[in-house]
Order: sequence, then C-alpha cells, then structure tokens
Amino acid sequence: METYSNFSVTILGNSAAIPTKNSHLSSQVVANHNNYFLVDCGEGTQLQLIRYKIKYHKIDNIFISHLHGDHFFGLIGLISTYHLLGREKQLNIYGPPALKLLIEMQLKVVQTNLKYELLFHELDNDNYNQIYENRDICVYSFPLVHRVPTWGFKFEQKQKKLNIKKSFVKLFNPSIEEILNIKNGENFVCKDGAIIPNNEITTPPQQPLSYAYCSDTRYDESIMKYITDVSVLYHEATFDNSMQDKAHEKFHSTASDAANMAKNANATSLILGHFSARNKELKSLLAEACVIFKNTIISQEGIEYLIS
Amino acid sequence: METYSNFSVTILGNSAAIPTKNSHLSSQVVANHNNYFLVDCGEGTQLQLIRYKIKYHKIDNIFISHLHGDHFFGLIGLISTYHLLGREKQLNIYGPPALKLLIEMQLKVVQTNLKYELLFHELDNDNYNQIYENRDICVYSFPLVHRVPTWGFKFEQKQKKLNIKKSFVKLFNPSIEEILNIKNGENFVCKDGAIIPNNEITTPPQQPLSYAYCSDTRYDESIMKYITDVSVLYHEATFDNSMQDKAHEKFHSTASDAANMAKNANATSLILGHFSARNKELKSLLAEACVIFKNTIISQEGIEYLIS
Repeated sequence: METYSNFSVTILGNSAAIPTKNSHLSSQVVANHNNYFLVDCGEGTQLQLIRYKIKYHKIDNIFISHLHGDHFFGLIGLISTYHLLGREKQLNIYGPPALKLLIEMQLKVVQTNLKYELLFHELDNDNYNQIYENRDICVYSFPLVHRVPTWGFKFEQKQKKLNIKKSFVKLFNPSIEEILNIKNGENFVCKDGAIIPNNEITTPPQQPLSYAYCSDTRYDESIMKYITDVSVLYHEATFDNSMQDKAHEKFHSTASDAANMAKNANATSLILGHFSARNKELKSLLAEACVIFKNTIISQEGIEYLIS
Repeated sequence: METYSNFSVTILGNSAAIPTKNSHLSSQVVANHNNYFLVDCGEGTQLQLIRYKIKYHKIDNIFISHLHGDHFFGLIGLISTYHLLGREKQLNIYGPPALKLLIEMQLKVVQTNLKYELLFHELDNDNYNQIYENRDICVYSFPLVHRVPTWGFKFEQKQKKLNIKKSFVKLFNPSIEEILNIKNGENFVCKDGAIIPNNEITTPPQQPLSYAYCSDTRYDESIMKYITDVSVLYHEATFDNSMQDKAHEKFHSTASDAANMAKNANATSLILGHFSARNKELKSLLAEACVIFKNTIISQEGIEYLIS
C-alpha cells in the first residue's frame, strides 16, 4: 500500500520581527519523502539547520514569502555557505521580484562567483499558481494580505494510484503491466477470459495530504479558497486577541484570526507561529485559538510535525 | 588612582567563512568603561549579543573589517532590530565604501525608514588613521593584506593624568583647581609660598592599554608598525602550519604567522581566532603559536577577555 508518511514540517524559527533568546526568525523545512523545501529564511537559518541536524544539502528549493527582513536576511548567508561547501547542483529561489536583484548585488559586492546555478522564480501576487512539481508533490503560491506583497505557499501531495488487494496478487500472480493497469483503474481479464471488476480487487488510496503556510497576513476571507480542506495550516498569530485592532492595522493576525481561518477553510489541524516578542505566555494564544478551532497547537522550534 | 580596568573584548564568533554547531561567524565587542564597540558583524551576531547578555543598545559604533559575508551579513539584521526596538540615537558604521550602498539598498527594498540616524564612515585603505575618539579612547584603522581591501583596528586608551599621593591630599587638602593643576604636572604652592615639586606628590599613571584586531590577513611585515607594543593582539589563524602555502595563497595566516606578528610587534599577549571549520583540534594551533610566542590563547566564544 502506498502511504503518505514522511510528510512533515520542522520549525526552525517562529519569532516575529526580532529574535529573542529562545526564539529565532521565520524559517521552516517541509520534507516530503526525500525532498526538502525551505520556507522563509530569516537571519540565523543556517545555524538552525545545523543545530537541528537537517540535511540541508538536500534543499533544492527555497520559498520566500515576502521582503521583510525577518523572513529573508538569512538567505544570502545560506547561499554563500552552499558555495563555500562546493555545491554544484542548481538552487531554486521562489520569491518577490526584487529578491533577485538584492541577492545578485550582494554576491557582486562580496566578489562571489557561485559554483552552482542560482535560479530565481518570480512570484505573481494576483493568482493561485503552481510554482513547483515533482513526482509526489506540487507547490502553489497564493496572495496573502500584508503591508507589502506577500505570498502563502501550499504543498499538496499528488493523488496516488489505487492499491491492489494482496489476496488478489497471491491468487492470480499478475504481471507488472497488469498491476499498473489495475492501479490505473482497469478490470482484470483472467486467462479463461473472465473479467474481475476493478473495484473487487483494489482499495482506494489514502487521500493526499497538504500543508499551507500563511505568514504574514491579516485575516481576509479571500485567502480561504486557496487553502480549503488543507491537512495542516501553519498560520501566523503575531498578536493575542486583546490586540485585534493593532493586528488589523499592522496587517497581522491574532490567535483567533488564525483559528477562524483554520475553521472556515476546513483545515484538519492548525499550527500557530510568528509570535511577537511581547507574548511571553503562549498558552493564552493557544487558549484563544482553541475556543474557535480545537485542533490547534503552538509551534515549537526544532520540532518536526508530521502532516497527517 | 585612575586605572584602566573595564577594558575588555568579548568574542561572539571566531569561525572562518562558515559557521559550525559551536562556532559562529566573526564578531566581537570591545568595551572600555561604559562604551561598547562592535567589531565585525557576521550572520547571527544579534543572536550572540542576546545569548551573552551584552547590553547591545550601548553600541554606538560598529567597525567592519572587509566585505566578505562572514564579517558583515549580520549587520542589516542588527540595524533593523535597533529600528524595531525604537532606537533614536545615532549609529556609526566604519567600513568599506560599498557598505553604505549595500545597506541603504536593503533598507529601501524592505521599505524601512530608520527612526535613527545611520552614519557611514568610509575607511581609507592606504594609511593609519584615527577614525574615532572619545574622552578615554581612540580607534585607529590600518590596512591589512587580504584578497579584498581589509582593515585592522586598534583601540588605544589615552594617556591618563598623574596620580596624586593620598598622603599629600590628607595633609594639604588642596582645592579642585589645585588638584587639576597637579595632575597636569604643576608644582604645589603652599600658603606660606613654599613650593613642593610635582614629582614628590604624584605617581605616574598606568601605561595606556591597547587592543588590535587583525582579521583577515596574510602575514605581512608592513602591518607590524601599526600594532607595535600593543597590549593584546587578536589575530586570525585560519590555518595550521601544515597549510602554510594555502594560507599564503588565500591571503590568510597560520598559527605561526599570528605568533610571529605578535612577537615582532612586541605585543604583550595574543588571542587566536577566525578558525577554519576543518580545524577540529585547536590545541595544535595553540601549540604551534606558543613555540614562537608563549603568551598565546585560543579565543572562546562568550568569554570576556580583560585587556591588561
């Protein structure tokens, strides 16, 4: 049976704007089977990758949500480190248009001619776009509602093929070609010409899982359609509910905003992040969110959350 | 008696090029009485300032040795954090000319209008220059020998005034004006007109102390004249002696190069730093240096070294 295990997100930093002693700037690693994706890259991300023993040479795709420093000031350092470590394979950066200019200018000033290809993919702020695809997964970008153009990202596993019942395989010993046909929904034709309907010899595959990253953003119903039925939603909760006006003014969310988004988008679970340094007590954020959406947790740095 | 206590350097990072689990990128804080000076600012410096509880709001002057990323990629993050924390007082940056353009461009892209004044002071690579002065200390820049224009920095305490003997004060109870005159070398005139020579009622002040920072650089005798008789020399030792050719080719130093510089410049003590990640065993670097210059130590992150 094909499963969707090994789909996870590891939080490297969940602090808003400025770091604190125990809280680093925004960055996380989404892993699907053996593919690693970096989402945002605040200052110190390469140090967090080392600390949590992430195999960061496996990262080939980096997604930058927006051009506020706490989400990308670590990118130039990581790019440089890859160069110094002798990286040869291409590195893809998905981000706002100005990011390319900024990185290239820094590389020029420090007189670094990268040994590997750095490929920039400009994000389009108006639409829901597929920006990456491999055999197992697609990544989509979509507009959030922040002070500057900002993107959310959705990682969606592809629909798997049908599972063949073991009892059938044991009894009929089908060829590889026949197995592939059955997994694609065809009936099985026995040697005597009898036909066994596909639904008698297969079980449906597990539903594909998905993960969405929404930081930084104001609560806005326009976002909901992009993340409907998502398995796990990571949503910013920069402020607690007492700061609702401030959150709206600053184009950020409260814990309740995040919970409402998870509830209205029919998410399975919610991970809160992007905490303001002034929130010393995150339990109250959790309590505020749980009133609206029970299946909520507070993100913790260094923890790998299975997407299920 | 006026002393020169409270003159120290705290190492925040001593790793060359790339960070490792326990070794951060170049940065250190020189403190003289209540003045804090930051020297270099590799990625993660603001995190190290927090970790080691440095009162970093007291830093008003930052010195950047050269434009290799491991020495300044943390600067934009620190500048941003000061802004977010509401800093109002001026921040002075001493560095290569291109640094101003690079920082200003990043601030423009992230749409940050600083609440405080950021003043850039371009370094001159040809000469020994006084670049900073306050009541107690002067800072000088001087050219090092690296692949790109690179500066060393020397922090030199000013010559203090003469110390007045307590026995004299007790006996003659001089006025403040008289005390100031004596400290400046004048004789004391008693009420009856008798003159007490200055050298009978004063002791010489402690010799001013100094600290020099030399990273990154190839060993070159031209540097010696700038740091002659320095109290404490921090010198890079990127390579061990077996890599002498490599060190020369890459415009870096070995442990022996650093020790020779300390010896030939008549330094009192030597702190080694800027270690390559490939040097797992720093004791061998220390041993190599001590053969030439005994009063050598290996820098350790988070340790405050008294300059004496």
